[in-house]
Amino acid sequence: MRRACLLSTLLCAAAWAAAPSWMPLPAVSTPGQGALAVDSAFRVSATGAGGALLQGAIDRFLARLVRQTGIPLSAATPAGGGATLRVECAGEGAGYPALREDESYTLDVTAEGAVLRAPTARGAMHGLETFLQMAAPGGSGFQVPAMHVEDRPRFPWRGLMLDCSRHWMPLEVVERNLDAMAAVKLNVFHWHLSDDQGFRAESRKYPRLQQLGSGGQYYTQDQLRHIVAYARDRGIRVVPEFDIPGHTTSWLAAYPELASAPGPYEIGRDFGIFDGVMDPSNESTFTLLDGFIGEMAGLFPDPYIHIGGDEVSGKHWLASESIQAFAKEHGLNGRDGLQLYFNQRVVGILAKYGKVPVGWDEILDPGLPAGTVIQSWRRADGLAQAASKGFGAILSSGYYLDYLKPAGYHYGIDPLGGAAGDLTPEQQALILGGEACMWGELVGPETVDSRIWPRLAAIAERLWSPREASNVDSMYARMEAVSRILELAGARHRANSGPMLERLSGSGDLGPVRTLAESVEALGLGPRVARQYTTLTPLNRFADAVAPESETARALLMAAKRVVANPADKADAAVLRARFAEWAANDAPYQAMAEGNPFLMELKPVSRELAGLGEAGLRLLNAVVRGLPVDPAWTAWEKAQLTRLMGSKEFPGAEVRLAAARPVEELLRAVKKPVRTPAVPHK
Amino acid sequence: MRRACLLSTLLCAAAWAAAPSWMPLPAVSTPGQGALAVDSAFRVSATGAGGALLQGAIDRFLARLVRQTGIPLSAATPAGGGATLRVECAGEGAGYPALREDESYTLDVTAEGAVLRAPTARGAMHGLETFLQMAAPGGSGFQVPAMHVEDRPRFPWRGLMLDCSRHWMPLEVVERNLDAMAAVKLNVFHWHLSDDQGFRAESRKYPRLQQLGSGGQYYTQDQLRHIVAYARDRGIRVVPEFDIPGHTTSWLAAYPELASAPGPYEIGRDFGIFDGVMDPSNESTFTLLDGFIGEMAGLFPDPYIHIGGDEVSGKHWLASESIQAFAKEHGLNGRDGLQLYFNQRVVGILAKYGKVPVGWDEILDPGLPAGTVIQSWRRADGLAQAASKGFGAILSSGYYLDYLKPAGYHYGIDPLGGAAGDLTPEQQALILGGEACMWGELVGPETVDSRIWPRLAAIAERLWSPREASNVDSMYARMEAVSRILELAGARHRANSGPMLERLSGSGDLGPVRTLAESVEALGLGPRVARQYTTLTPLNRFADAVAPESETARALLMAAKRVVANPADKADAAVLRARFAEWAANDAPYQAMAEGNPFLMELKPVSRELAGLGEAGLRLLNAVVRGLPVDPAWTAWEKAQLTRLMGSKEFPGAEVRLAAARPVEELLRAVKKPVRTPAVPHK
Repeated sequence: MRRACLLSTLLCAAAWAAAPSWMPLPAVSTPGQGALAVDSAFRVSATGAGGALLQGAIDRFLARLVRQTGIPLSAATPAGGGATLRVECAGEGAGYPALREDESYTLDVTAEGAVLRAPTARGAMHGLETFLQMAAPGGSGFQVPAMHVEDRPRFPWRGLMLDCSRHWMPLEVVERNLDAMAAVKLNVFHWHLSDDQGFRAESRKYPRLQQLGSGGQYYTQDQLRHIVAYARDRGIRVVPEFDIPGHTTSWLAAYPELASAPGPYEIGRDFGIFDGVMDPSNESTFTLLDGFIGEMAGLFPDPYIHIGGDEVSGKHWLASESIQAFAKEHGLNGRDGLQLYFNQRVVGILAKYGKVPVGWDEILDPGLPAGTVIQSWRRADGLAQAASKGFGAILSSGYYLDYLKPAGYHYGIDPLGGAAGDLTPEQQALILGGEACMWGELVGPETVDSRIWPRLAAIAERLWSPREASNVDSMYARMEAVSRILELAGARHRANSGPMLERLSGSGDLGPVRTLAESVEALGLGPRVARQYTTLTPLNRFADAVAPESETARALLMAAKRVVANPADKADAAVLRARFAEWAANDAPYQAMAEGNPFLMELKPVSRELAGLGEAGLRLLNAVVRGLPVDPAWTAWEKAQLTRLMGSKEFPGAEVRLAAARPVEELLRAVKKPVRTPAVPHK
Repeated sequence: MRRACLLSTLLCAAAWAAAPSWMPLPAVSTPGQGALAVDSAFRVSATGAGGALLQGAIDRFLARLVRQTGIPLSAATPAGGGATLRVECAGEGAGYPALREDESYTLDVTAEGAVLRAPTARGAMHGLETFLQMAAPGGSGFQVPAMHVEDRPRFPWRGLMLDCSRHWMPLEVVERNLDAMAAVKLNVFHWHLSDDQGFRAESRKYPRLQQLGSGGQYYTQDQLRHIVAYARDRGIRVVPEFDIPGHTTSWLAAYPELASAPGPYEIGRDFGIFDGVMDPSNESTFTLLDGFIGEMAGLFPDPYIHIGGDEVSGKHWLASESIQAFAKEHGLNGRDGLQLYFNQRVVGILAKYGKVPVGWDEILDPGLPAGTVIQSWRRADGLAQAASKGFGAILSSGYYLDYLKPAGYHYGIDPLGGAAGDLTPEQQALILGGEACMWGELVGPETVDSRIWPRLAAIAERLWSPREASNVDSMYARMEAVSRILELAGARHRANSGPMLERLSGSGDLGPVRTLAESVEALGLGPRVARQYTTLTPLNRFADAVAPESETARALLMAAKRVVANPADKADAAVLRARFAEWAANDAPYQAMAEGNPFLMELKPVSRELAGLGEAGLRLLNAVVRGLPVDPAWTAWEKAQLTRLMGSKEFPGAEVRLAAARPVEELLRAVKKPVRTPAVPHK
C-alpha cells in the first residue's frame, strides 16, 4: 500500500534518511514498494511531442547514467513497449525557454518500469534529472526506488550569474557549469560579459571592443551562439549583461572618446570601483550603444538584456564642466540624475530591439518601463521595494558565492523572507526568484567550479522547492551526494582540488597536505586580503585548492554531537579518535615537507594548530566517553591551551579557516557543562 | 664549482633524495648552483631548424607548464634574446620518426636561463619533458634546479602495446595515453587493432570487416590518420597490429568463407584462445589480405606492420580434410608447418607494399626475411633466440601490465638480462628494446589508465636509462612524483579512481571506502577469476576502482622500516599509529554502509581484516617503540591472531589483495627477532 508522503513528512529525520538524495527536493513524493533495476537491459522510449529537444535530453541522460553506474547502456530505443523508462511529453514547448513556461512533470517508478510525464520538453528534462538523482547501488547492482513524484518550481527565475570579465572563462568552463546548473534545475544563465577588466563578446560592428578590451580573450559570435544553443538545449535561458555606464574601462580602452574624462584607458588589472564611466552628455555614446545592442539583440534571443548599472563612480561626471552643464540644462540632479537619464536612453534603445532591461538595484526608478527586472544585491529589502513599485524582482543579496559562506547560510535566505513577506499577493507574484552571483576577482578556470558547487545546489533548492524544505541538516545530508552527481554531470569542483594540491606540494607524499586541506576552509572575498590581488596573480595557492566548506569537519562535528548525546557510541568515538590521532601525527611530516616550499610554508602555523586540536580532541573525547569529571591538572592545561586553540580559527596569512576546531569545540562544550563536571564549574 | 655526478652517484640514497624526480633518469646529470625561477615572465624561444614539429612541442610544453604551476604563461616568443629557455635544434629530423633516429639532447639550466640543444626535434621533445619533470615548488614559487644533463636512450624501440579489440578504447583514451607515453620518452605505439572480440580499423575495400566485426566501434580512416599524426608530433611511431591467422573471429564474422571450418562466426564475447582461424589453403584468404594490407600500408607510414601470429589453435586445420590434403601436397608439417606457409605468404604481401613484419615469438623461423622483428612474450630467452638467428627482437615477456604485478617486478627485467647477456655484441645490437603489453580483457576506457600508469614509467626507465639505474627504492621514490606529472600530461590513472569509488558507494561518506581502497591492491589477469568475465561485464566494481599497487602501503612500509631501525623515530611512529588507529576504527562505519550495497558487501571480510591489522599494528608498534620484550599473554594473542592475519592477504571473491599487511609484518618481524625478544624466541 502506498503511503502519501508530503514534503514536510519527508523532512522528518527518519524519513529523509531513507529517501533519495534529491536536490532540489520535489514538491511531492510518495514512496512505493520495491525498486527498478538499472542494468545493461535498461532502455528509454519517448512518445508524444517532445521533439529534438527531448531526444537530445534523453541522449545526455543515457550518457550520464553510464557514467553514474559504469554499466554500458544502449541508446537504441526499443521498437515495442519494452522500455524501462517511458517519457511521455505532451509538447516540445517553446523553441527557446520562456519565463513562466510550464516546467512541471510527474514521475512514477515501480519495480517493473518508470513513466515520466510532462507538458513540455523542459519539464521532462527536470524529471530526467530527478531520476538520475535516484539511481543508487542496491539489489544486485544499481536501482531506482519505487516512487511517485509530482514536481514544479516555486519560482520561475532561478539563475547563476557568472563573471567572465575579471578572469577569462574558456568555453568549456561555461559549458560544464551549464550542465551542472541543469542538474539542479536552474534555468537562467546570467552572463556577465563586460567589466573594467575585460570585454568578452565579439562585436563585428565595433571590433575595437574585443581587440583593445579583451587581451585576446573573448567569445566569438559563433561561440556566443553556441552557448545560447547549449543552454537552450538544457532548458536554460541566457541573459547577457553588458554593465554600463560604470564598470566600463574595457569599453573605454577601445573608445576613449566615450569616456567622461580624458583617456587613454587600459583594461583594468586590479579590482574595485573604477572612475572610468561613459559620458551621458555625448550623443556618440548612445549611437554606439544603439549599434552594439542591436547587434547583440540578434545573437541573444532572450527578451531580457542586463544593463548593469551598479557602482557608478560619480567622480568624473562631477569633475567635468561640460557634463555638469549638460546636467543643469536637462535638470538632472547629481550622479543619480545623470544615471537616470542614461538609463532612460538605454531603455529606449532596448525597446527599439524588443528587449526588456534587467539591472542591479541602483537603477530602480519609477520611470523605468513596466516589465523591467530589478536584481537586488545591496540589501534584501530591495526586492520588496522593486516589487512594491510594480517591477519584477530577483534576489541576489545573500546569494553571493564569492564570499565563500556556508551553504547553510545561503539556504536560509528566502526571496519571500523579510520585507517581501509583507507584500500583497500581487506584489509577491512580481518576485520572480533569484540568482547566485559568482564574481570573478579571485577565481580562475581551475577554481571557479569549487566556488560555485556544491553550494549553489542549496540555493537552487531554495528557488525550486516548497518553502517548507528548510531543514539544514537534511540539506547537508543530501548535498554531499548531489555534489558527486554534479561532478558526474561535468562540474570539476572536486576533480581540480587534488591535482592543485599535488602541484603545490612538489614530489612529497601528499598525505599530510591532504589531511591539512580537509581540515580547513578557504577564505573568500572580504577576509581574503593577504595579497594585493590583480587579474595576473596566479591562483595556485593552498587557499585556492581547498573547498569553501570542509565536509570532513562537518562529518566529525556530527559524530561529536552523537558521542556527546550517547557516550556509549563506540563507532563514532573510534572515528573521532582516529582522526584526532591523524591530526596530532600530521604536523611533524608536514613541517618537514613544508621546508623550502613557499606554498606550504604559509600553512605551518595552521598545521601546528591542527596538531594541537588533535591532542586536545583525544583528551576531550576520553573525558566525554568515560563521563569523567575533568580533573584539576587537566583543566589547567585546558585553560592554557584549549581556549587559545578555539579562538584562532582564521589564518589571514594563509587565507584559510581551521574548520577542524568545530568537533573539538563540541566536545569542549560537553565537558564544560556544569551538570557533567560539577566539581569544576566553568563560566 | 660544479661537481660531476654520474648516474651511479645519483643513485646513492643521499644524492637522489635531492635530485629531480626524473623518470626515466637521464644518462648523465651534473647539479649546478642555484635555480631558475619559473614565473609569469617565463618565455621560450626556438632557434635552428626544429620546424613545425618543434614549435608544436613548445606550445604543448607551455600548456603543460601552466597546468603544472598554475601560473598564466605567454606563448609569445620574445623578439630579442630574452627567453628563459632557449631551444636550439640542429634539424627537424625525419617527418615521421625513424627507428634508430638520434633522440639525444643536452640541457643546461642555470639561475639565469636554460639552453636545450638537440640534433633533432625528437631529441628536443625529450629534453622538454626532462625540463618539465624538474619544475618544482621552491624559492618564491616554482623553480628548476641548475643542472647539466646529457641524455640519450639505451634502446631505440620503447613501446606500449594497447589492445583496443577486447574492449573498445575511444579516440581520447588513445590520445591521452600517447601524451603520457611521450612524457616518459616512449617512442612506439603498438596498436592492437583486431582480435576475436573486435575489428577496429575501417576498411573501405572490405567494409564488412568493421560492419560485421566491430559492433559499431571502430576507428575511421580519418581517425587512424589522426592518431598517426598525433603520435608523430610526439615523437612516437605507430605500429599497427592485425593479428592473423588466429585471433581472427572478428574477421571471420565478416568473411566466414575465409575460415578453416564452416561458420557462421560472431565476434567473441568471452576470452581465451578461439578455434576460428584463417584458411591457408584458400587463395581468397591471401587475396583479401593483399587488398587489406595494401590499404593499411597507405594509412600507416611506419615501415613495420605487426602480423600477430600468436596462439593459433590448430584444431580446425587438423580437422579439415581439404586443409590436411593441402598440407600434404605442399609438404607442410602439422600446425606449425601450415602457419609457416601462411606467414611466408603474408610476408610476401608485406614486402610488396614495402613493409617489414613484426610478430609474436611463435612466428620465429629462419625462413623469415632479414629485418623481421620478433616480439618475445612467452619466455625471456625468446629474445636471445631471435637475435641469435639474426632477427630484430623486442622484449615483452615480463612486461605484461595486465597481470597487475608491482612496478618493481617489471623494473628488474632487462632486455639484455638472462640468455641475451651471453650474445655477441653484434647479436645484442639486434635487441631493439621492449614493449609493455596492455591486453584488454579486464580493462575499459575508465580503468585502462590505472592499469598502465604509473607502472609503465618503470619499464620506460628500464628501456631508456643506463642499465645501472636499477635501485628499486629510488625508482619508487621518483615514480610517485612522475605519476602526478603523467596525470597532468593527460593520463587519468588517478583521476578516475575517486569518482568510481563514489559511484559504487552511493551517497554515504566516502571516508571508510577510501581508507579501505588505499589499503588494498587490485588483482590482475590470472588471480582475478571471481567472475566469468565477458566483453559485456561492467567493470565498475571495487577492484576496478583501486590501483594495482598501494602507495599508502608502500609509504607505511618505509615508515615501519625506519621505526624498526630507529625506535626513537617519533614522527614515523606517530604516522603509523594514526593510520593503524584509522584502520581499527574503519570497520564499524564500513560494515554499516556496506549493508544492502552489492559493491561494498563483497569487501566486508577485507574490512574486518584491515581492522584486525590496525589493532595488531598498534600493539606491535608499541612493543617496537618501547623495545619491550613481548609478554607471554600478548604472545598468545599474537599467535592466535597475527599469523592468521599475515597469511590471508588475497581475497579472491573481492578480487583484491590486502597490502596493508606489509608494514604490520615488518613490525612483527622486528618483535619476533630473538635478539629483541630473548625471553620468547620465535622460529
